[in-house]
Amino acid sequence: MAPTTVRPVDIILHKRHGGEHDPAELRAFLQDYLSGDVPDYQVAAWLMAVCWRGMSDRETAGLTDVLARSGDVLDLADLPHTVDKHSTGGVGDKTSLVLAPLLAAAGATVAKMSGRGLGHTGGTVDKLESIPGFRTALSQDAFLRQAREVGIVVAGQSRDLAPADGLLYALRDATGTVESLPLIASSIMSKKLAGGAESIVLDVKVGSGAFMKTPSEARGLAETMIAIGCHAGRNVRAVLSSMAQPLGRAVGNALEVREAITCLRGGGPEDLRELCLTLAEQVLDASGLGTPRGRLEELLAGGHAYERFERWIAAQGGDVSALDELELAPGRELVRAGSGGVLAQLDALAVGRAANLLGAGRTRKGESVDAGVGVLLHAKIGDAVAAGDPVATLYHRGGHGLDDARASVLSALRIADAAPAAPLVLETGLR
Amino acid sequence: MAPTTVRPVDIILHKRHGGEHDPAELRAFLQDYLSGDVPDYQVAAWLMAVCWRGMSDRETAGLTDVLARSGDVLDLADLPHTVDKHSTGGVGDKTSLVLAPLLAAAGATVAKMSGRGLGHTGGTVDKLESIPGFRTALSQDAFLRQAREVGIVVAGQSRDLAPADGLLYALRDATGTVESLPLIASSIMSKKLAGGAESIVLDVKVGSGAFMKTPSEARGLAETMIAIGCHAGRNVRAVLSSMAQPLGRAVGNALEVREAITCLRGGGPEDLRELCLTLAEQVLDASGLGTPRGRLEELLAGGHAYERFERWIAAQGGDVSALDELELAPGRELVRAGSGGVLAQLDALAVGRAANLLGAGRTRKGESVDAGVGVLLHAKIGDAVAAGDPVATLYHRGGHGLDDARASVLSALRIADAAPAAPLVLETGLR
Repeated sequence: MAPTTVRPVDIILHKRHGGEHDPAELRAFLQDYLSGDVPDYQVAAWLMAVCWRGMSDRETAGLTDVLARSGDVLDLADLPHTVDKHSTGGVGDKTSLVLAPLLAAAGATVAKMSGRGLGHTGGTVDKLESIPGFRTALSQDAFLRQAREVGIVVAGQSRDLAPADGLLYALRDATGTVESLPLIASSIMSKKLAGGAESIVLDVKVGSGAFMKTPSEARGLAETMIAIGCHAGRNVRAVLSSMAQPLGRAVGNALEVREAITCLRGGGPEDLRELCLTLAEQVLDASGLGTPRGRLEELLAGGHAYERFERWIAAQGGDVSALDELELAPGRELVRAGSGGVLAQLDALAVGRAANLLGAGRTRKGESVDAGVGVLLHAKIGDAVAAGDPVATLYHRGGHGLDDARASVLSALRIADAAPAAPLVLETGLR
Repeated sequence: MAPTTVRPVDIILHKRHGGEHDPAELRAFLQDYLSGDVPDYQVAAWLMAVCWRGMSDRETAGLTDVLARSGDVLDLADLPHTVDKHSTGGVGDKTSLVLAPLLAAAGATVAKMSGRGLGHTGGTVDKLESIPGFRTALSQDAFLRQAREVGIVVAGQSRDLAPADGLLYALRDATGTVESLPLIASSIMSKKLAGGAESIVLDVKVGSGAFMKTPSEARGLAETMIAIGCHAGRNVRAVLSSMAQPLGRAVGNALEVREAITCLRGGGPEDLRELCLTLAEQVLDASGLGTPRGRLEELLAGGHAYERFERWIAAQGGDVSALDELELAPGRELVRAGSGGVLAQLDALAVGRAANLLGAGRTRKGESVDAGVGVLLHAKIGDAVAAGDPVATLYHRGGHGLDDARASVLSALRIADAAPAAPLVLETGLR
């Protein structure tokens, strides 16, 4: 590419005045930033101008591509039907643990590197580490071999996937420019593209417990991410799902693994099962493995998905015999309904905060998480409760956070004469 | 003031979302920037958010105050009726040279430090230095003594007036955030407030040759600057004047001093005379020295203003006997009308560029300017011209810039059957 002669300040001014960047110019600007030739303050001003004026799909795809190529890009081309899922983050979301074996059982390959992240509970890797012996540090050879043999491998993020995204995110975090549809979309998709899967399903959460508060905002984000994926030659589908209340009944690391196992054996909460089936249907269709809903239900009910789960856990050193008795914290405390009626509200954020207060999540990088603590819900929106009925159990290790956690769960609840409808899947098949 | 507990990123987010800053928080944020505790990139993002969302008069006044107090603030409190003028920059604008003696003759005190600036021609200090012997480096004592005895002193900017404005301007320049009404207004007014005069008249230029292209933009800038001045307890008036064509007929340093002298003796171009009288009337009224237009005309026609000019020049070491024969560049070249008709357009910017090409101005700090070169106009908008009539004389020293300067003057001209009305003073008495 010919060296650009456009000055960084002209790039900023162009965006400030609402213009669309020339792809080569945008690429040069960003690459010059990553190499240190453009200072933080110019990119900071540009980021705020992007928050103001937005970016076209072409610009967003260009930014994503530069971020995705800033580090290693996993080459999964030799593996059949590689698929991946991304969720924009929810409370009690253990779909990855169910989806990976279900997809592998249906003939797809799930080979991913997963970060630990921040949040109310740990990330997928943290949840898996509640299984004794489970290893997430894998060599590249072991990673690819397991993907081929078992159809599933989930490793800790040992390689540097889209490191520029981390750099840009830190600048956004310090400059009040996190909240921007194209910047959020490119950040998510840069890691997905570097992750190498050819088909991707996006689970965009909507509601008080999610970053996107309304379906139309969520749809905008989904459409932007789909456009990025198309530009990069990936098959992308998106689903909008409600985060009005936690997904399933378990919020906490080992608690969520237990719930995922129940689901993999054909049981578990209806909402979790429904979302897993929807996401699986979408990504399998995208990957060319179109599989009817009935067949997916059989894979769960017939034990095929669970069998694949055990093979996966064993392949990464996990103690399969321990799966039915994962260690939980010894302290138990019931949270009871103050009045009778119907559970009309169960705020996901407040429940997530309770789990975090008990020690299930981390607020700073590098903190450890407690696998055994969390919140188990005994009622969901629409359920009838009598005064004094237990609505949740807190799994705790005593101490300080317990009072605050109890208060947070209580603040999440509203009991009324009737509950609003609480549909889970708001939209599906976006592509 | 209590230390603020508001994080810089929350200040940025507040502005990003269109909020108004708490005065103490804004002050703390800016002071932390000036002391190096807030990095450039956070201020850069904030500046872009200000371009996006604007600032209230109260916020703008707060910013101006921090900038004004960042260095020395001249204390002129012991001097009677201190007055100052600021022009937003025009081509051929030598009003300061006329206004200062006129105001002093009317009983006011003009005591100012003036920068050299960048521009098509030099600043006031550069123009004054075309007078042999004229000194602009004055001690503080000499400065105040002359102000008291002569009523006028104009020194080079030896003290650090509003240095933070320079710092912030450099960041704005690099981040595409120059163009913002509150940022422009606070930049101008911070230097005026540090300059110490109690009454200030602002000459806001409008038109193709000015930063503000329309009267409504110019009025917005004027009103913002007036509000800042009010907050700071100064008496501020503003005038909107046209920069559709150069002011007067002379563009160049010595050429402009000569034209100013003619005006001070009661002659000179009508537009220059008109603007000087308007500005004088406004600022004298603001300062409590309300002086009828007729009296001001007498001060010019009766030689009082010119007498004051000579005393001033002499007090700063200038050779008064040389005033009638200031040295001009020896090269002369006439620019002639290509066709006959009425001069319908005389673009100020293009004439200014011509003077600059001949060496009258500087484009980088520290460059020297040539006092003797410039453009003398023989026709203004509305004048009848015959094909081949001289419309301008270029005063030059030969060389390279001459061809481009001639082309630039030619490009400035449009000769037609009729000329549009070209009023000079568009609005006056804004307060």
